[in-house]
Amino acid sequence: MLNTYLANVRLNSPLVHCITNYVTVNDVANVLLACGGSPIMSDEEDEVEEITSICGGLNINIGTLNKNTISSMFLAGKKANELGHKVLLDPVGAGASRLRTETAAGLMKEIQFDVIRGNISEIKTLASGSGRTKGVDADLAEAVTEQSLDGAVAFVKELAKQTGSVIVVTGAIDLVAEGERCYVIRNGRPEMGKITGTGCQLSALITAFITANPDHVLDAAAAAVCAMGLAGEIGWNNMLPGDGNSTYRNRIIDAIYQMDGATLEQGARYEVR
Amino acid sequence: MLNTYLANVRLNSPLVHCITNYVTVNDVANVLLACGGSPIMSDEEDEVEEITSICGGLNINIGTLNKNTISSMFLAGKKANELGHKVLLDPVGAGASRLRTETAAGLMKEIQFDVIRGNISEIKTLASGSGRTKGVDADLAEAVTEQSLDGAVAFVKELAKQTGSVIVVTGAIDLVAEGERCYVIRNGRPEMGKITGTGCQLSALITAFITANPDHVLDAAAAAVCAMGLAGEIGWNNMLPGDGNSTYRNRIIDAIYQMDGATLEQGARYEVR
Amino acid sequence: MLNTYLANVRLNSPLVHCITNYVTVNDVANVLLACGGSPIMSDEEDEVEEITSICGGLNINIGTLNKNTISSMFLAGKKANELGHKVLLDPVGAGASRLRTETAAGLMKEIQFDVIRGNISEIKTLASGSGRTKGVDADLAEAVTEQSLDGAVAFVKELAKQTGSVIVVTGAIDLVAEGERCYVIRNGRPEMGKITGTGCQLSALITAFITANPDHVLDAAAAAVCAMGLAGEIGWNNMLPGDGNSTYRNRIIDAIYQMDGATLEQGARYEVR
Repeated sequence: MLNTYLANVRLNSPLVHCITNYVTVNDVANVLLACGGSPIMSDEEDEVEEITSICGGLNINIGTLNKNTISSMFLAGKKANELGHKVLLDPVGAGASRLRTETAAGLMKEIQFDVIRGNISEIKTLASGSGRTKGVDADLAEAVTEQSLDGAVAFVKELAKQTGSVIVVTGAIDLVAEGERCYVIRNGRPEMGKITGTGCQLSALITAFITANPDHVLDAAAAAVCAMGLAGEIGWNNMLPGDGNSTYRNRIIDAIYQMDGATLEQGARYEVR
Repeated sequence: MLNTYLANVRLNSPLVHCITNYVTVNDVANVLLACGGSPIMSDEEDEVEEITSICGGLNINIGTLNKNTISSMFLAGKKANELGHKVLLDPVGAGASRLRTETAAGLMKEIQFDVIRGNISEIKTLASGSGRTKGVDADLAEAVTEQSLDGAVAFVKELAKQTGSVIVVTGAIDLVAEGERCYVIRNGRPEMGKITGTGCQLSALITAFITANPDHVLDAAAAAVCAMGLAGEIGWNNMLPGDGNSTYRNRIIDAIYQMDGATLEQGARYEVR
Repeated sequence: MLNTYLANVRLNSPLVHCITNYVTVNDVANVLLACGGSPIMSDEEDEVEEITSICGGLNINIGTLNKNTISSMFLAGKKANELGHKVLLDPVGAGASRLRTETAAGLMKEIQFDVIRGNISEIKTLASGSGRTKGVDADLAEAVTEQSLDGAVAFVKELAKQTGSVIVVTGAIDLVAEGERCYVIRNGRPEMGKITGTGCQLSALITAFITANPDHVLDAAAAAVCAMGLAGEIGWNNMLPGDGNSTYRNRIIDAIYQMDGATLEQGARYEVR
């Protein structure tokens, strides 16, 4: 089933407008090309509405937000809503500064997101309206584990209901939830956390998948999460002696590029609760 | 003959000022170093005139333009003209927004470019003053093919005459034209389109080549286009099972780094019309 | 002894706030993760004080400075001083424009830096208040060689005394000095100069090392310089036929990721004068 969602990305080649941080933007562009999508980056308020209009999906990532790009996020998001385009929010570092927390909250108030993806600390910050984040990485004490899983699933389902968005929480165990259903996904490798931007890449990937599968947002988002985690496993298997996190970054994007439907179908490890 | 132009880049180590997008800027810097040039990036209006003054060439790329960087492009371009430096325009996404189309047109009006390089959709937009571009990638319907080649050659020669610039159109077949002569180049691989920024890299490479060969702009630009395409072929031959677009990106820059004159001379596939 | 400083980075996982250029920022983030640290990038004045407050160290790099980021550098630097955090200055391109020279001088006046790292041209510019830099690369005529070493050591010790900062000058021979002691380090490879951002990466690495070893700034900075140079040697030994500067970039970061204390201890080549 998941292979259908990947096939539709390859078939439809969704054009994804990214307003994203300058740290990981190159990898974000390459992973969109790797999956079969096409990226366009633009964060200038004088053109974002026009740019988003020619695209199918919009990926808003607040990783290195500044005054100019914040207003562009609002403009582009509202236009995308108006046009019925798919829109994703990646609240990078929500909880690490008042500006990030308030920007994420403001965006959620004025824009209807199809998907919101973050680590558990960021998502908890969004849910409570405040929070403490250890920079851009999740607080270990909040991690979703087998022990805390039941509570975490209930939490993300509830937040999905409240927001009307599919909620994606990534970590050792990934959750992809709407109000009544939650994918619990166990793909991936812990070493992915030693590469900058695997989260940003995943957000872009999800945007491509939901844009190419507009009537199956939950399932397509789950397919993207499985694909990214599986690419992390395949990339790791292709590591040679001496390889480290920089080469691993390349191998993961390479694995997305090479991934076919059968590989995704067989390698995806998930249950639906 | 082409090997001479490469040798001059290695010999003169041209310092190239880049006002370029933040998506592909790292690869642009590395490809300049790979060919024997030296990059400096600066887009702040308070310093661009000074920075461009210590350089030999200027590469203006409108990929992620914003209000601040647009004014820097005008300032730097005029200063470079004044000093007789080589200047190249890469009109990324011209046709995708009014801002991009008008900025490119404005730059062409106030600055004399030695070379303008884009995909066919971008170049047609510049020629007509308006256009529709599919994001930052060329519209397939406009692609230069063996069937449409005669018309395309006539079109770029005419535009070269009108603008006084060497016009470079890249795609499956690349064209490098002045009013009376047009290189038709058949190097490269279609998979290069699955890497973000191969166009941006080529624009930087051309700037280095024309800066190091100031009296042979057409031929030096053609040498850079052949070198990039050939690097794409060599890089592809070095791909191993499991490698994808991210590793391919590295292998292409590596191939520029390793390229010697004999390899370029033997591998270049071009005719002059 | 140096292995202790590396071990402390791995143990303490210092969170490093980077206000840095968009050219090399991705590699900077990955090298911080490779050494065991954790990066957060932010340059918006509305949040930099808060962001730096949750971090342990601050890395200010003026590589692509602009009006907005300059004010953020001052705000973050003062806050870091107030909190007793470690702060490093990388004066990229000081001497190449008045704006860069004056910004570096202004930062040194208002902020007490624990470490200042640059190439010899940049550091001489800071010492004299003016200078001529060949873009972002050092002027060969000023290079630290075995012949000019005595004078160079005296120069950096004197500057360290004047500024109260550890001064790091990198090149074929690297110097790491306080007023009375200077490490002279002979690790590294000349080919590292053909990769964009090895200097920026080193500055980030030093920030992580001094943050994790707050009572041993001189020695920890020297350990970081040895580690980076050694990673350049190890990465070079792992190069395969056809590899060039782009792959070399990955291999150096990989070597930092893989480096253990014994390797650093055995591979470091330094004397103290």
